[in-house]
Amino acid sequence: MTQINRQILLAARPQGPVTRDNFRLVDAPLAPLGEGRVRIRNRYLSLDPYMRGRMSETKSYAAPQALGEVMIGGTVGEVVESRHPRFAAGDKVVGMCGWQEFGTSDGTDLYKVDDAHVPLSAFLGAVGMPGIAAWYGLNRIIAPKAGETVVVSSASGAVGSAAGQLARLAGARVVGIAGGAEKCRHVIDTLGFDACVDYKAGSLYKDLKAATPEGIDGNFENVGGEILDVVLSRMNPFGRVALCGMIAARDDESLPLKYPSLMLTQRLRLQGFIVTDHMDLWSRALTQLGTLVAQGKLKYRESVAQGLASAPEAFVALMNGQGFGKQLVSLD
Amino acid sequence: MTQINRQILLAARPQGPVTRDNFRLVDAPLAPLGEGRVRIRNRYLSLDPYMRGRMSETKSYAAPQALGEVMIGGTVGEVVESRHPRFAAGDKVVGMCGWQEFGTSDGTDLYKVDDAHVPLSAFLGAVGMPGIAAWYGLNRIIAPKAGETVVVSSASGAVGSAAGQLARLAGARVVGIAGGAEKCRHVIDTLGFDACVDYKAGSLYKDLKAATPEGIDGNFENVGGEILDVVLSRMNPFGRVALCGMIAARDDESLPLKYPSLMLTQRLRLQGFIVTDHMDLWSRALTQLGTLVAQGKLKYRESVAQGLASAPEAFVALMNGQGFGKQLVSLD
Repeated sequence: MTQINRQILLAARPQGPVTRDNFRLVDAPLAPLGEGRVRIRNRYLSLDPYMRGRMSETKSYAAPQALGEVMIGGTVGEVVESRHPRFAAGDKVVGMCGWQEFGTSDGTDLYKVDDAHVPLSAFLGAVGMPGIAAWYGLNRIIAPKAGETVVVSSASGAVGSAAGQLARLAGARVVGIAGGAEKCRHVIDTLGFDACVDYKAGSLYKDLKAATPEGIDGNFENVGGEILDVVLSRMNPFGRVALCGMIAARDDESLPLKYPSLMLTQRLRLQGFIVTDHMDLWSRALTQLGTLVAQGKLKYRESVAQGLASAPEAFVALMNGQGFGKQLVSLD
Repeated sequence: MTQINRQILLAARPQGPVTRDNFRLVDAPLAPLGEGRVRIRNRYLSLDPYMRGRMSETKSYAAPQALGEVMIGGTVGEVVESRHPRFAAGDKVVGMCGWQEFGTSDGTDLYKVDDAHVPLSAFLGAVGMPGIAAWYGLNRIIAPKAGETVVVSSASGAVGSAAGQLARLAGARVVGIAGGAEKCRHVIDTLGFDACVDYKAGSLYKDLKAATPEGIDGNFENVGGEILDVVLSRMNPFGRVALCGMIAARDDESLPLKYPSLMLTQRLRLQGFIVTDHMDLWSRALTQLGTLVAQGKLKYRESVAQGLASAPEAFVALMNGQGFGKQLVSLD
């Protein structure tokens, strides 16, 4: 009897905002496993803003997602069958198996993880790509000194929450920016930021100014647009901006930066980065992040949608700013 | 008999474009020289775009020029009288004596120069602050590798001409951007750039694309505005932009950066800088620049206005993009 693999394909490229109609759920037969290959039962699927860029054909740092193919995406799961010498049934692995129940890999993009002290889902968040993004931008670009002020946008998100906590561990005063009172409370009470500004309250400049009386020395930027404009206007001389995401620029449009002359007058450094350019640092970063999570020093929050079929709706909500913490889909 | 010192004062802050009416020429009596002080007969006055920023009261990296006071500005001249142990009559000195025939200093902002192998005026250009700006941005921010493509805007100007030649000495392919066919010819034929694009020709994107078939790895930016937008759109991954000036943003207005998301997708680093932040590197930079000028490997062009009274008109022309090479005023 042929086993069935449920999959979600990219059915159509978005024209403007992404919708559920851009995706299609299908049942595909699971082919017998070839020599040198590994079969994984995916346990969690990671939903991330970068996927929106791949859904379009515009120039990005990666090739677009092919139409009619399984949506790309990071996954964590368990090896159920292996014809590869490095993997055995029962291994827990992180990979890029995409939006489907079963993944098949030649092993090059899989790495084994140990979930004895860190929950399996965390390898898609604080001890995974989002955590590494936070680690790289914070340590390699912002490099805060003790007492400096670091502002983190999308502070309750997977990357922002880790970036802010790492900045605080480095001795910085950390101010988050998040949407809504509930997220701001979480950022302060649970994640331990010194302050958090609610950008939906309608007085972003005034509130950020009050929260950063000494100005801003470092900015971990996940949003762009008006938020970045306002943050830049509060930057101190020699400030550093790690550009990790610009999700304010929705739907293939580009929002301008209003006052680029601030880069000159304040001698700012703005640097865009993508974690997959820095694979040489992953093992070092993951070791540090895993230790911090196991010690309870790096906290994270997850939103878990249940079942593969819920992925499109959860992704649309994520792109509409409704996410809160790391967005996952449980495939159990 | 009291000696007269001709001076140019800031008479009024510009409302929009700077005009000759913003300045006033006066004859002031020269007071007897105090103990510990040095009197300099200025020989050349340097005119630079940064002065426009100082004439306004808007926030900049330096305090505004005071109304009714002698216009600030770099000068080179000869000591005519000294009551300071480090200086003697006949010494050639660079200083910030401003727009006047005689300067008086306590010595802290003066440094002695040797004009045996380098013409005195060059200490205000290629072997002075503009040269150091070129040296810093090129070596400390862009750091081009051999074979990379570096684009320099305002390529016929004091800073741009030095930056491009230094990039070429580092083994880069260098493309200038300048206004008009005459300047472009000078940039290629005299300064030795590989190509030069005339932004006044009306097809900037197309022409820059043709001149940079391999894309752009480094940008020494003196202009900003549309020129920076177009250059960014041609940047290769991991490109570096040294922001030295943004004179396109005239008259206190700020021009937006149209596509900041390129910083992310191309992983660009943009960094603003000001040479006076890096005084620790001056002697090293000046030694290298002076050697290159003496060897004929670093060429420069000067536009010299005659007499102090011509300074306002020359400055207005400089701000209108009519400069060609380093703008000086001869005070002989």
